[in-house]
Amino acid sequence: MTLDDLMNRLGEWLKGEGPNSDIVMSSRVRLARNLNKVPFSHWATKKQREQTLASIKEALADNEFLKDGLLISMKELDEIDRNLLVERHLVSREFIQKPDSKMAAISANEAISGMINEEDHLRLQVMKSGFNVTGAFDIATKIDQSLAGRLLDFAFSSEWGYLTACPTNAGTGLRASVMLHLPTLVLTKQINKVLQAITRLGLTARGFYGEGTEASGDFFQISNQVTLGQREEDITDNIERIIKQVVEYEQNARQMLMAQERQRIADRIWRAYGILKNAYIISSGETIELLSSVRLGVDLEIIKDINRHQLNELFIFIQPAHLQKLEGKKLSPQERDVKRAQLIRSKLLSS
Amino acid sequence: MTLDDLMNRLGEWLKGEGPNSDIVMSSRVRLARNLNKVPFSHWATKKQREQTLASIKEALADNEFLKDGLLISMKELDEIDRNLLVERHLVSREFIQKPDSKMAAISANEAISGMINEEDHLRLQVMKSGFNVTGAFDIATKIDQSLAGRLLDFAFSSEWGYLTACPTNAGTGLRASVMLHLPTLVLTKQINKVLQAITRLGLTARGFYGEGTEASGDFFQISNQVTLGQREEDITDNIERIIKQVVEYEQNARQMLMAQERQRIADRIWRAYGILKNAYIISSGETIELLSSVRLGVDLEIIKDINRHQLNELFIFIQPAHLQKLEGKKLSPQERDVKRAQLIRSKLLSS
Repeated sequence: MTLDDLMNRLGEWLKGEGPNSDIVMSSRVRLARNLNKVPFSHWATKKQREQTLASIKEALADNEFLKDGLLISMKELDEIDRNLLVERHLVSREFIQKPDSKMAAISANEAISGMINEEDHLRLQVMKSGFNVTGAFDIATKIDQSLAGRLLDFAFSSEWGYLTACPTNAGTGLRASVMLHLPTLVLTKQINKVLQAITRLGLTARGFYGEGTEASGDFFQISNQVTLGQREEDITDNIERIIKQVVEYEQNARQMLMAQERQRIADRIWRAYGILKNAYIISSGETIELLSSVRLGVDLEIIKDINRHQLNELFIFIQPAHLQKLEGKKLSPQERDVKRAQLIRSKLLSS
Repeated sequence: MTLDDLMNRLGEWLKGEGPNSDIVMSSRVRLARNLNKVPFSHWATKKQREQTLASIKEALADNEFLKDGLLISMKELDEIDRNLLVERHLVSREFIQKPDSKMAAISANEAISGMINEEDHLRLQVMKSGFNVTGAFDIATKIDQSLAGRLLDFAFSSEWGYLTACPTNAGTGLRASVMLHLPTLVLTKQINKVLQAITRLGLTARGFYGEGTEASGDFFQISNQVTLGQREEDITDNIERIIKQVVEYEQNARQMLMAQERQRIADRIWRAYGILKNAYIISSGETIELLSSVRLGVDLEIIKDINRHQLNELFIFIQPAHLQKLEGKKLSPQERDVKRAQLIRSKLLSS
């Protein structure tokens, strides 16, 4: 597998299937781990960081879950390729800022990935299509155990649990999240109440494009805020239970809206489709908004000539690095808006 | 010919051909005439109005230009049919307010029409596709002469010329106008300067849907303000000369825009087309705006799968009375917005 292979397909977690995949795009579990008696990445000397890199790299290269995948040094990649990994949700935006002593591991189907020397020595991520936090957690646990059982000695305190660079990740080191599409709660203005309730229950919401981004186009990434003082299973059970309710709210809102304002919804959905199929210049913000409406159209079976997988493909490929990778060169924001519109037209026409 | 025939076709003046028909939709000449020694319609008794009606009706029924056409009493029509005539630009909105003692004459191709007992005893109108004021005037003159020469004695003063109910129409009784489509002058914000210049030169601008309406969707109906103290030929020459310049301004603006911002124009045009083809609810205001962009697209040969005649058909048939006539019953504004979208989708899909 090479990096260029990413351009020919989508990660398995974007296949648009799995439980409640009309509302839950994907589920993700991330574990933060650090080597015992080695300074955290930010405090480590260059030599120490290189040593951390070497030992974790060896462990990952050897791991059965990551075989046939990719193990790449950030320093070897140009700016577009680094951003490509961010856009694929495989590494964090922070991770690519300073590429020294950093490597990423990516499984062949993109379901599993690891960052070496991000904030923590190792960040391990497992993604699943649809609503399947437990499934993602089970795999993450197996990889964690296989790593800890063989080569790596992780920093662990019997009092605090796993030690992490930032105390907000200590304890389980576990961050579970789901990507939700809640267009009808947004449309019916119930979303703020839902997000407030979620926050009171210890969860937090972000946008589709990750940490620090606004929720856009009705997509919300919901994750647990607390990692300490709870068992792993409590965290995953808690998020599954709460998200199940949010899913039901969105389902009910969709049913109500279809019963009461079918025409208005159809109008909104088909207009979005019409614009996407015809525009010659389009920003990523507008694209996300319109794709959100079209996705709802597919979920409500109003639009039948396109499926969720094709829409997910657009969500990923309309991003700046993907567009530039497709074009084989750097593009100005204006050039990207033209290229983006062209890509969307060709994908929707061939659908 | 019956009134229902109107629903199966368009007036000849909307065929989308003729000189400069990319910018000048149509040309129109209207003559105001009153019978000698008979009170103007507003001042006349019911009996006098009926007498006026009878004598003009007889003259029109007999006229070679109007044979095979329609001569209809407003009282016989229901509200939808009356408004249908307004929407076809065959009678004025004022004409249908009080239907008593009023008749309309319509030639088979809708190029010629007459109103009996509007503000003046007879308003005669001739319309031509494209930029052809002189052509319309020539026909109007012939009809005027054929009427005056046979049955009718028109009120005429050697000092004032033709006498009319409102002094602003006295003299020639001639109003010449052209319907212009000036999207690029609007887009490049040159339109106000152009309209100001036009006004200084004795012309006045209105919207597509007639007197008292705002110019909408970049359509402007330009006509002469003064009817008195000029010869007929001066009036038609003046408007032809000025409009010729406006046409050149618009042509130049289109060339400039295509050279400098081809992509932005294509984006605007195709988005409009995409929305029209896909919307399920659409107001007449938005429709006009979007049709304006699509028409520009056809003129610039960006859109090739539809022609001006088809667009003109939409301009006419998306109006309230046409929609209600098609549906065979009264529709609320909300129902019309749905019916309008449906009509547009079906017309554009079959194009």
